[in-house]
Amino acid sequence: MTQTTSLLRTTRLDNGLQVVTERNPSQRSASVTWLVPGGSACDPLDRGDGWATLLSEFLLRGAGELDSRGFSDALDRLGMRRSVTADTYHQHVNATLAGGELLAGLDRLVDLVRLPRFPEAALDAVRSLCLQELAGVEDDPASYAGIRLDEIRFPSPFNRHGFGEKEHLEAATLSDLQSHWNEVARPDGSILAIAGDVDHDQVMELLEARCADWSGIGPTPAPASAAIGGRLGIERDTSQVHVGIGLTGPVASDPDQLAFRTAIGVLGGGSSSRLFLDVRERRGLAYSVSARYSEGFALGACTISAGTTPERVAETLERIDAVLEEFDAGPTDEEVTRIAVGLRAGGLMQQEHGPARARQLALDIFRRGHARSTAELLTEFDGIDADDVRRVVSTRMGPSWRAEASRCLLGPANVIAEVGGTGA
Amino acid sequence: MTQTTSLLRTTRLDNGLQVVTERNPSQRSASVTWLVPGGSACDPLDRGDGWATLLSEFLLRGAGELDSRGFSDALDRLGMRRSVTADTYHQHVNATLAGGELLAGLDRLVDLVRLPRFPEAALDAVRSLCLQELAGVEDDPASYAGIRLDEIRFPSPFNRHGFGEKEHLEAATLSDLQSHWNEVARPDGSILAIAGDVDHDQVMELLEARCADWSGIGPTPAPASAAIGGRLGIERDTSQVHVGIGLTGPVASDPDQLAFRTAIGVLGGGSSSRLFLDVRERRGLAYSVSARYSEGFALGACTISAGTTPERVAETLERIDAVLEEFDAGPTDEEVTRIAVGLRAGGLMQQEHGPARARQLALDIFRRGHARSTAELLTEFDGIDADDVRRVVSTRMGPSWRAEASRCLLGPANVIAEVGGTGA
Repeated sequence: MTQTTSLLRTTRLDNGLQVVTERNPSQRSASVTWLVPGGSACDPLDRGDGWATLLSEFLLRGAGELDSRGFSDALDRLGMRRSVTADTYHQHVNATLAGGELLAGLDRLVDLVRLPRFPEAALDAVRSLCLQELAGVEDDPASYAGIRLDEIRFPSPFNRHGFGEKEHLEAATLSDLQSHWNEVARPDGSILAIAGDVDHDQVMELLEARCADWSGIGPTPAPASAAIGGRLGIERDTSQVHVGIGLTGPVASDPDQLAFRTAIGVLGGGSSSRLFLDVRERRGLAYSVSARYSEGFALGACTISAGTTPERVAETLERIDAVLEEFDAGPTDEEVTRIAVGLRAGGLMQQEHGPARARQLALDIFRRGHARSTAELLTEFDGIDADDVRRVVSTRMGPSWRAEASRCLLGPANVIAEVGGTGA
Repeated sequence: MTQTTSLLRTTRLDNGLQVVTERNPSQRSASVTWLVPGGSACDPLDRGDGWATLLSEFLLRGAGELDSRGFSDALDRLGMRRSVTADTYHQHVNATLAGGELLAGLDRLVDLVRLPRFPEAALDAVRSLCLQELAGVEDDPASYAGIRLDEIRFPSPFNRHGFGEKEHLEAATLSDLQSHWNEVARPDGSILAIAGDVDHDQVMELLEARCADWSGIGPTPAPASAAIGGRLGIERDTSQVHVGIGLTGPVASDPDQLAFRTAIGVLGGGSSSRLFLDVRERRGLAYSVSARYSEGFALGACTISAGTTPERVAETLERIDAVLEEFDAGPTDEEVTRIAVGLRAGGLMQQEHGPARARQLALDIFRRGHARSTAELLTEFDGIDADDVRRVVSTRMGPSWRAEASRCLLGPANVIAEVGGTGA
């Protein structure tokens, strides 16, 4: 355990860039997650909704001395798998490659973050792609129901789906994007995590050389208004009815976070959970039903999702309510043990998968202020206590928690009319 | 390299069960993939289309001395993540757990395969869930277009989507399912692969004790009729238009397989491929466009997919055709090198991810007759030769290959009327 801990190293550059590496002596690949400020919540609300997604497209289209094609070829020659995607807070620059190519690859990623080319010739194609993605949002009913739930459950600017507004995408200019990126992509607020075949000192040497003249503080979005809340019904001519229920939860840095996570696991995590056994296994009411908890930086969230049929939706909703009410009494000791064992096993597996580990290290630093070693994680899981979980259920959940739930229902018009809520 | 090879061990029991393990000394988790005959192509065509999916549901609902709840609790106590899913040929029993619990977990999985309980009380719920899943198939337009393409491109019984026929699901009895499973789930044709923290001798000792009295040969489905082929248009009121083009390809055991895979990589694998650069990056015609190759046991397949808009679909199809025609001249040396480097990097990463590695070991044995060590895989990738790839392009692809393509288009009625093909 001591050995594992010592393989985790963190350094903060003078300019604020945080770097964490975890060497895994048995791995020959290295996985990178670089969080750079500039997620969808950083988009200017009034005219730039969608800039983050345009940026994700642009960042892989040439950087430093290389044009789009040349940059892509260079990464290919390194055998680098890569992607750039935006979440609420950051652009996630992800890469995996052989450890022997890590430094050469990192050099290119510094170009990507600091010197993207924003080729004029690509603007029409990039815009067209983002508009297409936006137009396709409604085609997948399950994910669309989730998007619309987020819209009512979260305060602005955290309630945006990230695909942007049509008008804003159409109006964005190259100089809008360049100056926005120049403003947000700053070292203070950036977190670079590397797991696998990595040498911390070599990485730091490269970063000192390439990032010493980079400076400034990236934005940290904060809630700008209250959530809309309530119930939303969306009429769609689908075979299934999609149910989404949004509840609150602790943020990652909250001391109750792990007990809350355990409670939600008992409620709706996997095939032994109360919701699964009651709604799916015993009654066959819904093909899928689950509760999941996402710890966040500014907002924690618990989401209950179900996919059912028009004939069964009313009973499905009744049973979900009943299971939630019964849960006020809290989980049994055995249920808590089951979830703790599962979390421990999941922690071990994640440790062994480079890309998942890099992502976790980066998000740990962002959300908690420090990266947890595997030993530390496992110790946390071993310390899960049933009484503590019941305390958290009685203080953080219960009738008032349930009363504040937002709900989104997507399905045929007659279902929405019967059980639906406000039309949309 | 020699060391890596020696960590791979295979044993064939007298009853035909094939076992492959690959010890990874650095991993503390063990990942299991157990292929058991009984996939969708084993379903009786005339009355049992969907039995495989009903079986996947039933197999986790109690086995040996444990009822559904007890079985689930027992697996949870082992910290085992598990799933049972059916593909064309097999039920895939997948599990990951801490290495220290592997033998106890394997003991339960033997129960699952050999002694499933098929509880009468679960039949209504299982049937209802499978009917719901079937009803939901059309709700996701992209995957539905793929399903309908498979229906016309592959010969029966390989052209079924696996969700079953409504009438067959409704008519299935418990004794149908029990006797079908009893018939198909036989050791000869079963392949058990374990990667990670595993001791081959201990595994074999357990299997000898538990499976010595198991006997018989599982079915190996074969094509029963010619494919329908042609062009299919599906009218749907979607924002996007989904294009699927089905072409043939070599099976896994074909010596041309790797050269063909490389060629398809150049054509449509990733962001430097010809299709991506031409259709997406340069022209912004389609949000997604790719070509992928799936080596199979009885059938290999190459699939070109694109998601575009009604206004752009005609030009998208034209450009795909043009890129395919230009590709008759074969890839450049540089393109081949790029794909070979990527395959090599991907091979390394897969090796380090237990669940992916277990799956590959099992499928290797099924499709090729033997499991490849990582060293063997990397040697294959290092041997990729541009002239050989061009030879395969000129002999296995080209005008006659393209002429036999099947095509499925899903989108608004006016698009289908204009560019679509036979209505559906």
